[in-house]
This record gives sequence, structure tokens and C-alpha cells, in this order.
Amino acid sequence: MSYEHILYDVEDQILTIILNRPDNLNAFTVTMRDELIDAYDKADADDDVRAIIVTGAGRAFCAGADLGAGKDTFNYKARGVQKEGELHRDGGGRVTLRMYQSKKPIIGAINGPAVGIGATMTLPMDVRLASDKARIGFVFSRRGIVMEACSSWFLPRLVGISQAAEWVYSGRIFPADEAKAGGLVKAVHPQEDLLPAARRLAKEMTAESAPVSVALCRQMMWRMLGADHPMEAHKIDSRGIAMMGQSPDVAEGVTSFLEKRPAKFSMRPSVDMPDFYPWWEEPEFK
Amino acid sequence: MSYEHILYDVEDQILTIILNRPDNLNAFTVTMRDELIDAYDKADADDDVRAIIVTGAGRAFCAGADLGAGKDTFNYKARGVQKEGELHRDGGGRVTLRMYQSKKPIIGAINGPAVGIGATMTLPMDVRLASDKARIGFVFSRRGIVMEACSSWFLPRLVGISQAAEWVYSGRIFPADEAKAGGLVKAVHPQEDLLPAARRLAKEMTAESAPVSVALCRQMMWRMLGADHPMEAHKIDSRGIAMMGQSPDVAEGVTSFLEKRPAKFSMRPSVDMPDFYPWWEEPEFK
Amino acid sequence: MSYEHILYDVEDQILTIILNRPDNLNAFTVTMRDELIDAYDKADADDDVRAIIVTGAGRAFCAGADLGAGKDTFNYKARGVQKEGELHRDGGGRVTLRMYQSKKPIIGAINGPAVGIGATMTLPMDVRLASDKARIGFVFSRRGIVMEACSSWFLPRLVGISQAAEWVYSGRIFPADEAKAGGLVKAVHPQEDLLPAARRLAKEMTAESAPVSVALCRQMMWRMLGADHPMEAHKIDSRGIAMMGQSPDVAEGVTSFLEKRPAKFSMRPSVDMPDFYPWWEEPEFK
Repeated sequence: MSYEHILYDVEDQILTIILNRPDNLNAFTVTMRDELIDAYDKADADDDVRAIIVTGAGRAFCAGADLGAGKDTFNYKARGVQKEGELHRDGGGRVTLRMYQSKKPIIGAINGPAVGIGATMTLPMDVRLASDKARIGFVFSRRGIVMEACSSWFLPRLVGISQAAEWVYSGRIFPADEAKAGGLVKAVHPQEDLLPAARRLAKEMTAESAPVSVALCRQMMWRMLGADHPMEAHKIDSRGIAMMGQSPDVAEGVTSFLEKRPAKFSMRPSVDMPDFYPWWEEPEFK
Repeated sequence: MSYEHILYDVEDQILTIILNRPDNLNAFTVTMRDELIDAYDKADADDDVRAIIVTGAGRAFCAGADLGAGKDTFNYKARGVQKEGELHRDGGGRVTLRMYQSKKPIIGAINGPAVGIGATMTLPMDVRLASDKARIGFVFSRRGIVMEACSSWFLPRLVGISQAAEWVYSGRIFPADEAKAGGLVKAVHPQEDLLPAARRLAKEMTAESAPVSVALCRQMMWRMLGADHPMEAHKIDSRGIAMMGQSPDVAEGVTSFLEKRPAKFSMRPSVDMPDFYPWWEEPEFK
Repeated sequence: MSYEHILYDVEDQILTIILNRPDNLNAFTVTMRDELIDAYDKADADDDVRAIIVTGAGRAFCAGADLGAGKDTFNYKARGVQKEGELHRDGGGRVTLRMYQSKKPIIGAINGPAVGIGATMTLPMDVRLASDKARIGFVFSRRGIVMEACSSWFLPRLVGISQAAEWVYSGRIFPADEAKAGGLVKAVHPQEDLLPAARRLAKEMTAESAPVSVALCRQMMWRMLGADHPMEAHKIDSRGIAMMGQSPDVAEGVTSFLEKRPAKFSMRPSVDMPDFYPWWEEPEFK
């Protein structure tokens, strides 16, 4: 693994992705964007990865976009990044859309400042934990820019539109406790307990569950957030039960339960997803 | 009423449906599925039923699918339940889709273990109460199977996707207090107060309200959960106000309020729904 | 400003709209409907208005529809308000749909009884504050009528469908503390601190943020509540970043941040919205 701006570490079936530009408060770069997407791809293809923790190196989680280009930071035309006639694509959104498609549970371990894309990149995670040093800000309105990384879709679904509005319009930085009170993070931990807590949660999510089942459930829930009618779920449920019902994982899951012993699931998300998966067509950017 | 696996009891305008296989922890069967659907049909047709309470006989609410067929429990092909070329339909989903269409408020009184379909069949209910003996589990990942009963649609809408993810990925059983903290149940009661509390809530929902109005409001809210734009509501609101505004119920509702006396509403959900109801077309399973 | 049933007062860049029929508990009228819509139009066109507070004159916020026409109040045909062959449009919905389109943050300061349309007109606001004198009721079922003002769309999205069901089916009036516990209002204040608290919140939302950015973020979040897939946000984010990234507001937002000084944003919502705004087509009533 030869990443420059992140670290990728698999241990005990948990992948820890570390945003790794500590001298720059892990500010987001094009390199980081590409490496994160690549890391999520690798994780989905690696059956030894059962869950993913994302955290930051040093004292920050991620301080937001690297503002090294000053006032032209977001002026992709002036900087020659966006070619004439080309449609600009938001880099943060590329990352969060990839996370949305993940087969593996993703846990945020917000260890310090998480601002701008540093905050919004946590929204498609399944659970966010914070250390008491975390400080979070959806600061777009203070920079004069718009919300990114699909955060206008994710944030109101996570914390309600009223709490989202308050944070986004003001653009202010708020502490971990307020993030917890507002429903953005599940719990606040002393700094030294943050990663252990994230690992305990990852273990809890994976210790007794079947990886293919978790992958299917993750996509079912995130996709159904956008479905108009529960019938959409009923169609997938019915296919899922019919196909998985004949599978070795269900035979083992039921048998082990009846025999009161731990299950040993054999199906692998890399190659054993049932053939109705994916049941959706990913929409194109245009 | 000659049901085998449930009891159907109307008293004081409240229907209590009791899951009634106490020797099997009220495990869900095909018979129970059909009887529940029939019971909800009967309730909608019976103007003497103003609200519905669902609870379990004995010490469980519902322990989930009956696993009597062992490892072939969900292998409908092997068991000859699913005919060649036939599309399997999830039985839990048939029940929850019927509940979704109910004209009457539904209250869950979760008196003990509610696991798998025992948990997911409570999600289209309007309110869930739990006894301190309740234990709840979305255990699909531990059996290697997928979420059912449209729970991937309902659960994240009730408790948020983060809490849903945590419960579903781990598949663990959790106590009533955690269900309350997570927003799944409204309140936890000592066992002996559970049914009285459910009845008080049913009374509160029906004592002073017009049955046709409640039926319309119930469908408006559940249907609008899947609508893209508030204009969808505006269309129904406008038709509803125009038609109900000319009705005897509104004349009585306004007059009784001005005269400071209890209203006596005469319209019946069985025959007096306004002619724009239903305003939707139920999607087909395919 | 020659309004009859509301007051319109701009001070310190905050517009306060006061429902102003104190002798009638600010009951909603056709005049009030038209004046509210006009006020929101004016506010969007006036760059000196950065945020909007809505409150009531005297001891009520708004007691609901004016029931002066007695049992024919909602019988628009009998009263000759609705012409033969004409489709009735709910007046409350006209107001809330206009609020939904607002470029400016809207804060409710619920100073007393807010009942029927008095309650539902607060739902498209971004944040609701209540005084300890507030009493709220979604009383439709007690009048025999249906929910209005698109409240079946808004309310379950704000407080969850379970809490919404409980309030709507019973139709009962509940106090400020219950509104806070149920997630409908952000905070409860002593009467004399209600407007100061609303002003502090309005200041917080506007003091350091760019008005065009806030207008865009407001519409992004409310619109994305109805979008099926985060890709819908990604498309808008990408266009927003590309266009705003070249704007004077972003240049100032980034520069001022790097120079650790307050930003002075120059773009005006009345004339400087980027040309992809609005990116939606407002659906027609029919």
C-alpha cells in the first residue's frame, strides 16, 4: 500500500484508515480524495476487512479543504484544474458517494477538528464517535461557498433539518458535546478511549454476523432512505429471502442458533453476493 | 372469529390482537401471517374498532419465524413451499404492507422478547410501548439472512439510519431501555401496566377525534413520508378540506367547539370515506 | 407597508413578522394568508433582510382558522368562496409552500397558543422557539377535518411519524415542554426572553455568513429532503462549487479566514444568485 496522504491498516479484520497529513491538520487534497476512493474499493474487495474505522493522525481529524491556493482555492477555472467546457465534479462528493456504496460498516472516530469536508466526509458513515477534543463545523456559509460532499442530502436525514439549518446557516464550530446532543455523534469519549471504543463497536457489528448479510443490509437501509414506498423494500426482501434462504450462510445461521453454538459463516462479500445484487443502477453524474 | 394463532378481541372500541402461540413464544407462522392480514381487514371494516393494540400471549411478544424446519426454514424451494418459476413473497412484508394501509391507529404493546419478524412487525405501528421485560433484536445478520417485512424502509425512518445500522449489523438483542433511548419505543412500563398504558393511549387517540378524520390523517402522514415535495400534500389537503368542509363531521366538529361541548361525529370509515380516498394506487409486487 | 392583519418590521437586518389580530388571538384569515405570502416575497427581495422571525401580538401566537362563519367555516361552496367547477386550494398550504421557497432563514417565536394553522404554519420554519406560555395543537381530528398546510409532509419529517401520529390522532393541545421533548421546538424560554432568544439565534445564523451562500444552502437542504439519491445533491454541489468558486464571496471568505479577520461579503440574494438557481421546477397545483 503506497498511499501518500492516508494510512491503510488492517488488523484483526478491522481496517483503520488514517487521514495522514498531520502537519497540515490532515487538510483534504486531490491525492487524499483519490486515495480514499481507492481504499474503499480495496476494502470492499478484501474479505479480511469486516469493518472500517476512519480517524486522523495527530491532533486533527481533518481541517477541511487545503486552502494553500488562497482565494483561488475553489476557483478551478482560474487554477486550470477545470478544463474549458468540462463539468466540474465536487471531490468530496466523489468520496461520499463511494462510501454510500460500501459493503462494509464505516465508523468515524473524530479525534479533533473536523471542518468543512472534514465534517461532511463523516456523514455517509454508519456511526460517528467523537473524542472530547473534537470540534465540528459546517463552515460553508462563512467561506461564501455551498454545502458539498452531498451533505445537503445526508445531514438533514441524520440530525433533522432544524438542527442542520442551525449549524449550516451560522457556519460556526461546535464542540463534541453539542454534536452528541444534536444527534450527529453517538458518543463522546476521552481522547485515549476513542479508538478502543471504535474498535469495540466494530467488533460488536461483526463478531457474530454474516458478512454477506451485513453487506446486503447496509445497502438495503441506505437505498431505502430514498425509496417512495415500502413496496420497494418488499421486492428486495422477497428476493433476498428466497436466494439467501437456500444459501450455506442461512443453513449455518439457523443450525448454529438451534445448537446454541457460535456460527461460522463461509460466504464472502467479494464473490458470493447473490445475483440480484446490486438491484439498483447507480445514477450517472451529468 | 375462528383464528388459530391469534386472538381478536374488541372491547370498548379497542381491538386487541394477541399473538397466541404461548408455548412457542408466539413464533410467526404462515397461519399467523394470514390471520393477521385478515384481522387488519376486519378491523378496517368494523366501525366499532377505533384503534388496535397488538400484544403477545404469555411471556413473549413474538420470538420470530418458527424455526421448526431447521436449516431449511427459509429454503422455500427445498421445502416445496415455493413452486418452480414462482416468485417468493416475504410473509412478514405482506403483513406490514397491510398494516401500512390501516385506517385505524395501531399501538404495539411489546410484553417480552420481540425478535426478527417479532420486532419488524411492530415498525408500521404508529406507537410502540414496551414492558420492562421486552427484549428486542433485529437478528437477521446472525442468521445469515436479509432484513424483511420492509424493515429496511421503516426502521431508519423511525430511529435514524445510524441507530438502525448499529442494531442491524450486530444483530444483538437489546433491552427495553435501550429501545426507548434509541427512539424505537415511546415508553417502558412495568409489565402489569403495559396493557393499561396501551389502552390509555388508544383512548387518548380516539376519545375526542373523528374516525374518518383519523383515517385520512393516518394515510396522509404515512404516504407523505415517501413524497418528494410538499406539493403532494397540498393537493390532498386541498381536496380533503373542500370535501370534508361540506361534511356533517366538520359541521359538528366546529359547532361543538364553539358550543364548548363534546362532539358527536357520525361519519363511519367503513362507508363514509370521501371519494378521493384512496388517492394513490398501491404498487404491485413483481 | 400597509398590512391589516400582520406587522412587518425590519430592524438590525432582521424582519419580524407579527401576526396581528390580538383581539381574535391572531386567528388566520384570507387577508392574513395574502399578507404573509406578500411579506415573504418582500423579504426575499430585500437584501437588508437577513433572517425572519415570526411571532404573535398579544397573548396568542395564532389560534387557528377564524371560525366566524361557524359550521360553514370550511364549507367554501356553501359560503360562495369556491366557485362552481373551481378547485379549492388550501390557504395554509399556499403560505407554507411560499415559506418552503424562502431564501432567508425563518425562526418561529411561539409566544402563546398555536393551534391548527397556527401550529402548521410553523413547520416550514427552520427553527421554532417557544415561550413557557406556548400551547400547541394539531386539532384537525377534533374538528373532523384533515391536516392542512402540507403538515402531513412536514410534521413527520420534523418529529418522526410516531410522535406526529400521537399528536395528530388525539388532536389534543400540549404544552411547550412536551413540544420540546418531542423535537418540535428547539428550546423553551420565559416569555420575556422569547424574542431576545429568537434575535440571538437570527444573529448567530447571519453574523458571519454570506447571504447568497445561506440562501443556496437553505434551498439545497429543504429540496434534498425529497430527493431519492445523494447524486441529486452531488449535481448541485458540483455546479455550486464551480460557480461560487469564481465569485467574489468565496474569494473574500477564504481570504478573510486566512487573514483572521471578519469577512465582508458583497453578493446580494436579490440579484446575485448563480445562474443555476433555481435548479428545480416548482410543481404545479392541479
